[in-house]
Amino acid sequence: MTPSIVALGGGHGLYATLSAARNLTSDITAVVTVADDGGSSGRLRSELNLVPPGDLRMALAALAGDDAHAQLWRDVVQHRFRGTGALAGHAVGNLILAGLTEVFGDVIPALDELGRILQLKGRVLPMATIPLQIEADVVGLEEDPRISRIIRGQVAVATTPGRVRRVRLLPGNPVACTEAVEAIERADLVVLGPGSWFSSVIPHVLVPEQREALMATKARRALVLNLGPQAGETAGFSAERHLHVLSQHAPSFRVDKVIVDGSTVLPGSERAHLARAAAQLGAEVRYADVAVAGTNKHDTAKLGAVLGDLLPTPTG
Amino acid sequence: MTPSIVALGGGHGLYATLSAARNLTSDITAVVTVADDGGSSGRLRSELNLVPPGDLRMALAALAGDDAHAQLWRDVVQHRFRGTGALAGHAVGNLILAGLTEVFGDVIPALDELGRILQLKGRVLPMATIPLQIEADVVGLEEDPRISRIIRGQVAVATTPGRVRRVRLLPGNPVACTEAVEAIERADLVVLGPGSWFSSVIPHVLVPEQREALMATKARRALVLNLGPQAGETAGFSAERHLHVLSQHAPSFRVDKVIVDGSTVLPGSERAHLARAAAQLGAEVRYADVAVAGTNKHDTAKLGAVLGDLLPTPTG
Repeated sequence: MTPSIVALGGGHGLYATLSAARNLTSDITAVVTVADDGGSSGRLRSELNLVPPGDLRMALAALAGDDAHAQLWRDVVQHRFRGTGALAGHAVGNLILAGLTEVFGDVIPALDELGRILQLKGRVLPMATIPLQIEADVVGLEEDPRISRIIRGQVAVATTPGRVRRVRLLPGNPVACTEAVEAIERADLVVLGPGSWFSSVIPHVLVPEQREALMATKARRALVLNLGPQAGETAGFSAERHLHVLSQHAPSFRVDKVIVDGSTVLPGSERAHLARAAAQLGAEVRYADVAVAGTNKHDTAKLGAVLGDLLPTPTG
Repeated sequence: MTPSIVALGGGHGLYATLSAARNLTSDITAVVTVADDGGSSGRLRSELNLVPPGDLRMALAALAGDDAHAQLWRDVVQHRFRGTGALAGHAVGNLILAGLTEVFGDVIPALDELGRILQLKGRVLPMATIPLQIEADVVGLEEDPRISRIIRGQVAVATTPGRVRRVRLLPGNPVACTEAVEAIERADLVVLGPGSWFSSVIPHVLVPEQREALMATKARRALVLNLGPQAGETAGFSAERHLHVLSQHAPSFRVDKVIVDGSTVLPGSERAHLARAAAQLGAEVRYADVAVAGTNKHDTAKLGAVLGDLLPTPTG
């Protein structure tokens, strides 16, 4: 049987996971954060009141089929308009998704139809079917370091010079995407991360039905850590701290494997701390070489090999 | 054999011809004026320096296949963005064509690829592969009616309160689209008009290679007159005058049939004048009921029946 993988995240982190997973199976479901408010997505969101399309589009591009037509449409979908006018910087795929969504009155058939043109190796779904906002409690923005301020918006949170303590979704406890919940329930492997920790990863455990599906699924659950702290959101964060803040946001959340690039956590006390933090999530740490040498980008083949090890062994 | 029809024009007039022709054959080539500078097309043209996509998009929509996916994409392509922002009023298909054209670096493969998605009953081609401008000599704009002024731009020409005497293309004598010339050469029936006479119809005889192909082809040539004068460009024009101004712009141009709605030209001296003007073009006048009753729109079925009569009788 074709193994089923669900990858949750947003932006470049999710693109990396999907690029790795596409070589393992054709049954991949991408579940995408929909709280982005920057760039082309932010402009479309505020202009047309749509689920921000950018991360959805990138996930579609990552899963486009191998056929020449599919690859052409991948290039078109990813193409950004040139020039210096009203369209400059808009990704063509964002505009196509926006148009399809207006015609269908619903983002899910819009994604499925563009996925059909792209001969998708799976399906791309939003974490929620309405646009969400991210709001964070941030300290360190005033002289008194105990004072916490509320920062709202994905771009503002991701780039705050302060320290993010907690994030919330607005509206809170949003309704999950039914199709995403079903995909999680029937998956063999669920992969959360890598990605912007507060604005792309943690939001997935803040959608109640989706969090419950992640806890109830019989799938293996992998959490893929970033290859380095992200300026702004997680500046100075240890690997261990990434797990702690995830647990703080969803205390009962559990994973099976935490995938960490060996070079990012030194052997010794750092690894002991990480092992303890992982154990609190119910997880073992899997150290592996998953980076493109000399960069903080995940290597598609290396990450794919690690994910492949987590798939059920074919029987028969 | 499948009969081959080439329809030349732009805008709503060409849409009407194509809607009529699609029921006669699946081998239709639309050849579209590319001098539009208004609306969504005008904005894209000036922003991205593209062949204006609007009339090309309408021709694609007119020829979209009958399959549910094709009809869905026809709706998407024709959909105009809502809202009050930078995208408001842009047709989604114009943006898709613009994106495809930037990726291919050429409008013709872009049209063919979008045509593939639309399961096109034929092909849509531009009259020239570079954006053109229309420039007109217009009298009646000053107190002295003999003074002629130059008016530039399709919108300005189409809406001038003066009287258009002559139009030119800028750049003059543009290179034709090779594929359009080939389609004209191998056609069984070529249809010019209806449409904005000076800005959508006459431009087709101002492209030297295309005019020569229209004169050399063994196809039947039909000229479809408008159902009424158009405010601005042809206000007060008789049917006969439409033929005269076409001849003035291309003295050696010939057609076989002039298709006129019977209700628009009164029997008697008006018809005698029209017959004489048609004879100078080498044509007979075919009076037929081709309008949607009580409107100045062409009826798809009625116009289709008249065009069908001009196709070669199947042999064998």
